[in-house]
Amino acid sequence: MISEKMIRMTENGSAIRAMFEEGARMAAKFGRENVYDFSLGNPNIPAPEKVRQEIVRIAAETDPMELHGYMANAGYPEVRARVAASLNRRFGTAFSEDNIIMTVGAAGGLNVLLKTLLNPGDEVLVFAPYFLEYGNYVSNFDGVLKAIPANIEGNFQPDAEALRAAVTAKTKALILNNPNNPTGVIYTAETVKAIAAVLEEKQKELGTSIYLISDEPYRELAYDGKEVPYLTKYYRNTLVGYSWSKSLSLPGERIGYAVIPSECDDARLIFDAAVIANRILGFVNAPSLQQRVVAECLEESADVAAYDRNRKALYEGLTEAGFECVYPDGAFYMWVKTPGDDREFSENAKKYNILVVPGTSFACPGYVRVAYCVSLDMIIRSLPAFRRLAADYGLSK
Amino acid sequence: MISEKMIRMTENGSAIRAMFEEGARMAAKFGRENVYDFSLGNPNIPAPEKVRQEIVRIAAETDPMELHGYMANAGYPEVRARVAASLNRRFGTAFSEDNIIMTVGAAGGLNVLLKTLLNPGDEVLVFAPYFLEYGNYVSNFDGVLKAIPANIEGNFQPDAEALRAAVTAKTKALILNNPNNPTGVIYTAETVKAIAAVLEEKQKELGTSIYLISDEPYRELAYDGKEVPYLTKYYRNTLVGYSWSKSLSLPGERIGYAVIPSECDDARLIFDAAVIANRILGFVNAPSLQQRVVAECLEESADVAAYDRNRKALYEGLTEAGFECVYPDGAFYMWVKTPGDDREFSENAKKYNILVVPGTSFACPGYVRVAYCVSLDMIIRSLPAFRRLAADYGLSK
Repeated sequence: MISEKMIRMTENGSAIRAMFEEGARMAAKFGRENVYDFSLGNPNIPAPEKVRQEIVRIAAETDPMELHGYMANAGYPEVRARVAASLNRRFGTAFSEDNIIMTVGAAGGLNVLLKTLLNPGDEVLVFAPYFLEYGNYVSNFDGVLKAIPANIEGNFQPDAEALRAAVTAKTKALILNNPNNPTGVIYTAETVKAIAAVLEEKQKELGTSIYLISDEPYRELAYDGKEVPYLTKYYRNTLVGYSWSKSLSLPGERIGYAVIPSECDDARLIFDAAVIANRILGFVNAPSLQQRVVAECLEESADVAAYDRNRKALYEGLTEAGFECVYPDGAFYMWVKTPGDDREFSENAKKYNILVVPGTSFACPGYVRVAYCVSLDMIIRSLPAFRRLAADYGLSK
Repeated sequence: MISEKMIRMTENGSAIRAMFEEGARMAAKFGRENVYDFSLGNPNIPAPEKVRQEIVRIAAETDPMELHGYMANAGYPEVRARVAASLNRRFGTAFSEDNIIMTVGAAGGLNVLLKTLLNPGDEVLVFAPYFLEYGNYVSNFDGVLKAIPANIEGNFQPDAEALRAAVTAKTKALILNNPNNPTGVIYTAETVKAIAAVLEEKQKELGTSIYLISDEPYRELAYDGKEVPYLTKYYRNTLVGYSWSKSLSLPGERIGYAVIPSECDDARLIFDAAVIANRILGFVNAPSLQQRVVAECLEESADVAAYDRNRKALYEGLTEAGFECVYPDGAFYMWVKTPGDDREFSENAKKYNILVVPGTSFACPGYVRVAYCVSLDMIIRSLPAFRRLAADYGLSK
């Protein structure tokens, strides 16, 4: 008998796989151009040209021993120093290389941080709706994920009062994903201040340290000049997980970093333990070539304006068709209210070759996530199909 | 309180860090050219020129969306098919892409396999001396590592009878590292057959599946035309973890693969679970650019002849000085018997600016590991220092 935990996961995993397979089947049957796949958070804007130039330049110029050899498990000191300097310049922080660990994407970074923090039975809080994978990351280290219900009336801004009710003596961390997947909402400075105040109060009351883990792969995807608060400035015990997957469209390369500010409780111990966790989980270090590439591209970003055009076209099209959508300020997801059950809705959408993810997959039924990291052309072509779907539900105006 | 397991590890970790720091201190004090650092298994032979050419070509020619985007968590199907074809051609196996998962190095692959297999309390066997990191990998998933004592009389070939005595109903796996770190010994076909026979017998007797995990980052580093048996041909329940870290000198890039042969017990389930484990541990997938690079370099290898020259020079120099060494057939390590305690010996060696790792760090006291993935020049310059050390122990002839 192999791992029972993993056997259970292969059984649960099949629903998601079934969706991918359905997409492929539909494309084969109807032609790829007639299938409207909004199910995946895979960036469709290419990496900036500078990424290509730097790969070529670095490979051509660097001694291969230096380029591909081991370095400190935390990553190249000079790369970490440049990441710290970039954060300091943009957010007014005061990090140095000793606060930065280069990681295998944000997923790798979150696993490293959770392995560092959690004892079996420790609780990790998250606000619904949330990326369900967090539950797996927490379970890897025998922690318990507890979801705080979605604040639907509050336009999906986390509710600090609900947080107060959820914190216990076993609460080790709160994961905050801002801008949010799946809602596209940016948590405001006011929201963050209220959360920080509750955490401070609870730390004092319980005599514990509660770490705020900021998962921010979508930080650079904010529209209309909206600000995404930098959490270490609002709450002392903040740890950050970042990835260039979205901002530089490099999801396959697995490159990101974690921030462990010096002012955290047990900061030095957490840093040292996280470096060891990075090693013994088998990451060892973030991929060496990509560390050097991102260090040269800290001022670059994917073409956010293209996602913005998609956002506007999709929002306009869906609201015109009669759907109620959360107007997204960040990321590349539209959060759409479903008339009736969300799983049923996503099944019905398939009749029109539309693929969307039910809100149930983010612990928030009654909505679907429409990922608009697709071509604008596909969005425009999909709108008649969305209108027919709306008509079936009696929504069309 | 952060993870107690990790706090203990930061305390243990400091001994190794102290050695690195000592090396840096010595280099600063005496000059780098006067310090003989044989402590690290970091390849000193550069990656083949084709690696550089392929990085540049692939980056220049490939659509960045395809090159840096997500792919199946198991890796690009075409890369996996080419890896399978290369194994089939070289070892007479019959793998397809459905038997291969691209991994973040062998360390990532081993963690994925262990997460897939282990229930808490399951035992994983290993023959001493062994890479102590295995203990951490097993402990990540609450397994119990049990070491089988070194077969010193049998020239460090694993002893099948000792294996028979060690297997229990809780034995889930045996990790075999061939060619071996730290001894440089290649386990022969006879050894492998004897191990396979015991495992078959015990599986029948206990009614369990016992997986043989072949950790083979040193496979291509074999000298004098010595053959490294391909374990899936000797034992049905074999899983393989491989890395290009040593064969292509790419340790910083974190690229390898796992093999899950179709004839294994629960092969399909293991494959599916391993793909999920790869995702939820935070690897997600092996770095995308490097997947394409290694697929073009399957026929390449680092300059093994250079390691061979080092091997001969070091063996000759050390035996001439009076040391008793295991003559290494593979990898880039010399296993040297210490007159007296190995930790004391490695301390005494520092007086002559020689850094070597005590056998105690591989669960086998009475020896030290001398890593000869260094310049031939350094080996030659170090020999007078080794001779003085031998004289202190009354060894010199």
